[in-house]
Amino acid sequence: MQDVTAVVNDVSDLDFEGWACPVPLRDIPSVVMGHGGGGAMSGELIEHLFLPAYGAAAAAELGDSAVLTVGSGTRLAFSTDSFVVKPMFFPGGSIGDLAVNGTVNDLAMSGATPLFLSTAFILAEGTALSDLGRIAQAVGRAAEDAGVRLVTGDTKVVEHGSGDGVYLNTSGIGVIPPGVDIHARRALPGDAVLVSGDIGVHGVAVMSCREGLEFGTTVESDTAALHGLVAAMLATGTGLHVLRDPTRGGVSASLNEIARASDVGIELVERLLPVPPAVRDACSLLGLDPLQVANEGKLIAIVPAEDADRVLAAMQAHPLGRSACRIGSCVPEHAGMVVAKTGLGGSRVIGLPIGEQLPRIC
Amino acid sequence: MQDVTAVVNDVSDLDFEGWACPVPLRDIPSVVMGHGGGGAMSGELIEHLFLPAYGAAAAAELGDSAVLTVGSGTRLAFSTDSFVVKPMFFPGGSIGDLAVNGTVNDLAMSGATPLFLSTAFILAEGTALSDLGRIAQAVGRAAEDAGVRLVTGDTKVVEHGSGDGVYLNTSGIGVIPPGVDIHARRALPGDAVLVSGDIGVHGVAVMSCREGLEFGTTVESDTAALHGLVAAMLATGTGLHVLRDPTRGGVSASLNEIARASDVGIELVERLLPVPPAVRDACSLLGLDPLQVANEGKLIAIVPAEDADRVLAAMQAHPLGRSACRIGSCVPEHAGMVVAKTGLGGSRVIGLPIGEQLPRIC
Repeated sequence: MQDVTAVVNDVSDLDFEGWACPVPLRDIPSVVMGHGGGGAMSGELIEHLFLPAYGAAAAAELGDSAVLTVGSGTRLAFSTDSFVVKPMFFPGGSIGDLAVNGTVNDLAMSGATPLFLSTAFILAEGTALSDLGRIAQAVGRAAEDAGVRLVTGDTKVVEHGSGDGVYLNTSGIGVIPPGVDIHARRALPGDAVLVSGDIGVHGVAVMSCREGLEFGTTVESDTAALHGLVAAMLATGTGLHVLRDPTRGGVSASLNEIARASDVGIELVERLLPVPPAVRDACSLLGLDPLQVANEGKLIAIVPAEDADRVLAAMQAHPLGRSACRIGSCVPEHAGMVVAKTGLGGSRVIGLPIGEQLPRIC
Repeated sequence: MQDVTAVVNDVSDLDFEGWACPVPLRDIPSVVMGHGGGGAMSGELIEHLFLPAYGAAAAAELGDSAVLTVGSGTRLAFSTDSFVVKPMFFPGGSIGDLAVNGTVNDLAMSGATPLFLSTAFILAEGTALSDLGRIAQAVGRAAEDAGVRLVTGDTKVVEHGSGDGVYLNTSGIGVIPPGVDIHARRALPGDAVLVSGDIGVHGVAVMSCREGLEFGTTVESDTAALHGLVAAMLATGTGLHVLRDPTRGGVSASLNEIARASDVGIELVERLLPVPPAVRDACSLLGLDPLQVANEGKLIAIVPAEDADRVLAAMQAHPLGRSACRIGSCVPEHAGMVVAKTGLGGSRVIGLPIGEQLPRIC
């Protein structure tokens, strides 16, 4: 985790090219790891640097995925993600699987059917072609499994020492079926909060193969393409309000984002959280919160309470949602905040992570 | 230029994960700078590594831009490009302008109206936020100038020493108007070869600010969005066969690609090539061929001979095509090859560059 948690926001007047931009970026003059963590610092970079600098050319939100209308009313989802995970190969997958599934999932979270993917590689000089080949095979297999076509690409090479191994950007296009309207702004008080399975697995899997970190049990990444699960949920005909794949920043970052966007409170029941023993052990060893650890094959769904059982049944009938469960509710109290009921009857605030617990996990 | 020009192709049986792939990658076991140069080695990486590894999931061609049909027949152009130019700021522009214009131009080269762009940053820890702000401003201005919306994005951070400064991927979506059919396969013998202006300017501009390389004259990058020029050309109602923006690998790489894809010969007239004096001087000083130096605001057009004058007039009436001119023809002889008629009445083969003359120019 970044050591900036104690620093309060402050306005430093960075002046780039004559344009004084108030950047409440915690008085840090340069990029730190936390800016890439998907938490509060990532949000600040978007809000206080990218959006003001982009000006009129930027869409009002610069989210994980955009919904666009083209031609005679066809609604597209469009998403981009760069992957810099280290190591490139880890238990249960590689940067190749992650890059395909990550973008497929970003598209699926707006209810889109993912169709087309681009792959753009930045390679460090000296990377073994056999490693690149294995990664490209993983990309091909994951795309075939997900039913998406790899239609365009790009390759750049940087000098040895200017990059490590392989960075891989995937961007994707999907089509949103008529009538589907899923958005982080749509959560309502009373809605049920569901999760499709065990949390924290991907982050712990990557951690387990970092130098010097070994746990008794091998944990394999949960990387998977979730659009099939989403299709099964949509087929129930119920009103899905919000879907999110809790990657960087974990469940905590996704729920905080939803609570703020919808201006509702979210109340989790701690004993209902599906944290597998290996993840719980690894997290207590390292002092991490499983709610902040990344997932790459899980989704959170916010649905009307009366539909929760039907949606849960559809999830549990799908291979990727077998241990789906309800973990909490949206409430009218503490709007914009996520709170967990603890085992002892108390409650604790689940804050938006500041930087990141574990860098380079995707 | 890579020092591999003298190495003949050879098959080395790289075996990634049990799958023996014959990779005629010049007996090199690892990535070299030339794999990112847009020349023969880039082509070999696509043909002999990416396409076999991707398998059934890959489109038959994995080009700079794909044409996709969605909904009720809407044709989209979809393109991706990562930018790793060094230095990030150079005379006439920055990585920010380049990243917008480069993807806008890839879309425009299939006749599409560019509409939506994503921006995905990979930042090295320690990059000054003021530099990032200047780059983001350049992105915003270039997008506004080009009339495209920045709709989605991503930011990752890598440790200091794992990347230098800012890498920026842009992916883009455009809509292709009905009736427009522009493709590298459509050149025919007899067609005229046009270029929209002076060549080699971007490459020399970037070179001029690299350490230890200084020329008498300042050359500014020609980076520009070309879709307005393309629209003016389409408005003539003539049959445009091929458009290409000759970036990495220069005019030489683009024309070789067209000659091969269309199975025609291309004959250039050397004295007609618009090489400005500053580019000519820099190239002779460094032993480079201006035909292989990158451009970022120029296009090549292949048009039926009878339409050439009308298309040229439309180009010359546009600010970005004022010095457009005809530089040669497509011919039935030497199919797949590009040949230049020299001033002395002889001719020389203009080969596809092997690696790259100058790395990291985009």
